[in-house]
Amino acid sequence: MNKPVCVVIGVGVGNGAAIARKFSEAGYKVALLARTLEFTSKLASELDDAIAIACDVTNEQAVLSAFTQIRTQLGEVSSLIYNAGAGSWGTVEDISAAAFESNWKVNALGALLAAQQVIPAMKASGSGNIVFVGATASRRGSAKTAAFSPAKAAQRALAESMARHLWPFGIHVSLLIVDGIVNIPATRNKMPDKADDFFVNPADIAATIYHLCTQPRSAWSFEVEARPFGETW
Amino acid sequence: MNKPVCVVIGVGVGNGAAIARKFSEAGYKVALLARTLEFTSKLASELDDAIAIACDVTNEQAVLSAFTQIRTQLGEVSSLIYNAGAGSWGTVEDISAAAFESNWKVNALGALLAAQQVIPAMKASGSGNIVFVGATASRRGSAKTAAFSPAKAAQRALAESMARHLWPFGIHVSLLIVDGIVNIPATRNKMPDKADDFFVNPADIAATIYHLCTQPRSAWSFEVEARPFGETW
Amino acid sequence: MNKPVCVVIGVGVGNGAAIARKFSEAGYKVALLARTLEFTSKLASELDDAIAIACDVTNEQAVLSAFTQIRTQLGEVSSLIYNAGAGSWGTVEDISAAAFESNWKVNALGALLAAQQVIPAMKASGSGNIVFVGATASRRGSAKTAAFSPAKAAQRALAESMARHLWPFGIHVSLLIVDGIVNIPATRNKMPDKADDFFVNPADIAATIYHLCTQPRSAWSFEVEARPFGETW
Amino acid sequence: MNKPVCVVIGVGVGNGAAIARKFSEAGYKVALLARTLEFTSKLASELDDAIAIACDVTNEQAVLSAFTQIRTQLGEVSSLIYNAGAGSWGTVEDISAAAFESNWKVNALGALLAAQQVIPAMKASGSGNIVFVGATASRRGSAKTAAFSPAKAAQRALAESMARHLWPFGIHVSLLIVDGIVNIPATRNKMPDKADDFFVNPADIAATIYHLCTQPRSAWSFEVEARPFGETW
Repeated sequence: MNKPVCVVIGVGVGNGAAIARKFSEAGYKVALLARTLEFTSKLASELDDAIAIACDVTNEQAVLSAFTQIRTQLGEVSSLIYNAGAGSWGTVEDISAAAFESNWKVNALGALLAAQQVIPAMKASGSGNIVFVGATASRRGSAKTAAFSPAKAAQRALAESMARHLWPFGIHVSLLIVDGIVNIPATRNKMPDKADDFFVNPADIAATIYHLCTQPRSAWSFEVEARPFGETW
Repeated sequence: MNKPVCVVIGVGVGNGAAIARKFSEAGYKVALLARTLEFTSKLASELDDAIAIACDVTNEQAVLSAFTQIRTQLGEVSSLIYNAGAGSWGTVEDISAAAFESNWKVNALGALLAAQQVIPAMKASGSGNIVFVGATASRRGSAKTAAFSPAKAAQRALAESMARHLWPFGIHVSLLIVDGIVNIPATRNKMPDKADDFFVNPADIAATIYHLCTQPRSAWSFEVEARPFGETW
Repeated sequence: MNKPVCVVIGVGVGNGAAIARKFSEAGYKVALLARTLEFTSKLASELDDAIAIACDVTNEQAVLSAFTQIRTQLGEVSSLIYNAGAGSWGTVEDISAAAFESNWKVNALGALLAAQQVIPAMKASGSGNIVFVGATASRRGSAKTAAFSPAKAAQRALAESMARHLWPFGIHVSLLIVDGIVNIPATRNKMPDKADDFFVNPADIAATIYHLCTQPRSAWSFEVEARPFGETW
Repeated sequence: MNKPVCVVIGVGVGNGAAIARKFSEAGYKVALLARTLEFTSKLASELDDAIAIACDVTNEQAVLSAFTQIRTQLGEVSSLIYNAGAGSWGTVEDISAAAFESNWKVNALGALLAAQQVIPAMKASGSGNIVFVGATASRRGSAKTAAFSPAKAAQRALAESMARHLWPFGIHVSLLIVDGIVNIPATRNKMPDKADDFFVNPADIAATIYHLCTQPRSAWSFEVEARPFGETW
């Protein structure tokens, strides 16, 4: 089995699942990480050469053991897609220090922990892809993203630092800015009046992520948006 | 003949030719515009359903008649790739008002003139792609780009204004930032010591432009870089 | 008379007049440039050591003769405040090539022409200030600023290029982004329901411009906003 | 005693001390916070109406008790200057999760904790200033700022979110980007060959911070650079 290995971190019914399917279809073995196995174990069973691992990415030890398992069961990682991204909503007056910290841990600290697990092998092979899934809040702090935006901005700065350091070693680090509401049951239920057209489709996000992972190294992109055509920005 | 029509403006041996080949291979009829027919007439003869037109894009009348010819010979345009981009080098003390103006005309005014030719039919069909080929100077004014950077920044602002206006009509306007030295004979001769790896390959730029033109409208990108992996940025 | 010389370009009842008053109060001789003398001749008569000059800043010859007159009557320029900034409103479909060009001429070409007149003496003295008055549109292209935003973005890129080149010679080039509606009779009449608080006061803009011109060179600012506290951004 | 109160967090021999002196001279009572009292107790004794408080800003309880003391001894805070900003140097391969976290705690979490202490009274009075002291790394992630830049970017995003939320209440939140090496004994010793001109002077930084705190609310700045004239950027 010489299939390359893709790890998707933060796999729910939306982007994570679509990314996993896309890489699986493209011939990758896929490791699906989420806090629980509830959704991922079912998804893994539908895909060839896929495994599901329960992992809290904010826990250094948990990340270490997840990647040890991945290397043992699937081999070295060639593409890491970091899609974990929980966020709180609220102004500086609304949010607690605890929420501020947990947003940062999921979006920034977890990104560092996961990346550090795959860099050595990627450097050794002179190749590899690390894609972070960002959001509008990665670029701007809005009144009500006092916890989420600092977390996403930290992730973006980490991605940029990593890109500057790792690109010359042949490792393509990039950042996808999802600037819209993703089309999943939870968002559809909250916004029953919105047409299909209003939403970002997870499969379309996955397609651009996959494109990033296939760009020849003479012409890499770092930061790319995924935004519905009707979105105001 | 129901093939879609692609117009490439600014066709020389580098990006322009690669973009034309890419769209031709993908099943497009292609119109190749450049100031002279010297290079484009030969390239057109190598491609199926391709025509070469001599056109100074800074001349409103010339642009009008070029697009009239395109519509008559090939049909309405579905993808416009604006690759014209001559630039002067020099500080604010070095450049003349004439150079400042001609940089702006090629990079910004020509972009407006060409775009205005294709928008009505794109709006009518609720689809279409307009891609501007930018440069590092689109984003920052360096000491020695006192003429070039204002021209490219104007182009970028035009592209952004157009995107905000036209995306909701189904027209995908985007901007590719080429952040590196393109691999063509002229640059190779100037930099004989640089390895292949140092350069951006036109075919790789063309691939990302083509990807932009195929993104589903639920997840469009506006601004995308094409940068060699070893580039300092 | 050893008073320093300030030139304000684009002097009407709003920012231009306030800037002129501020520098006059601070002990500068002031040259007031506008297309006509209607307003400026009256203002000049109210200020000490002030002259009014009719000048179309988009006309290279007119700029040359205006600065010749300034040097003769007042002496070498130590502060140049470029406040000329007419703009059209409209989408890419609304605007004409002529409007696109005239916006660029007033905001970008005129800025170059004026700056080139003062740089040699500033370089010789190792000091001087050049402040460009920008707008929200300097940073982003909105749907309805298809002509104005490319012009302002070109001005901003020119300012940035100039700053990178001229700061090391002791010349402080900076850019003030006015992000709000200026409080002048014309805007008040158009928006009769808005409270005083909604507007940017010209005197407050002038104060920040003057602050920029007094910063010690160990800690210069390049780009600074002037935005009313209640503005949405 | 009706003097206004300024709190400076992160007071060492450089910017912190200069900011404290500037506000003291301008008629403020000043509270000086640093992890130890070693430097601040001496500085406080030189200034009128100044107190020194030992405070680890990353400790929620410590911040709470410091501000309780400030309110009791000096009164409600009208200007908060957040200058705490320790940073590690290193690429994503060099840094530990612990360093990544401590950088974030000092630059981002501490900023939140301190700001939350002063907002209620500022809102009640409809006025107040909160200035964050950022760095080049607030804007860009360089290869060797894998820990520092995410921390500073988080701080910047928090500042931006706070500005959007608090400006309409009359509270001026702003961010000063220090883009240069500050002139203090430690940096001078490390770079003995650099001329005075190479460095940013703390007093000049303090002057621009004070200017930010005196801007009338019709024309506030959010993000302002302090950069030596000879710096490359």
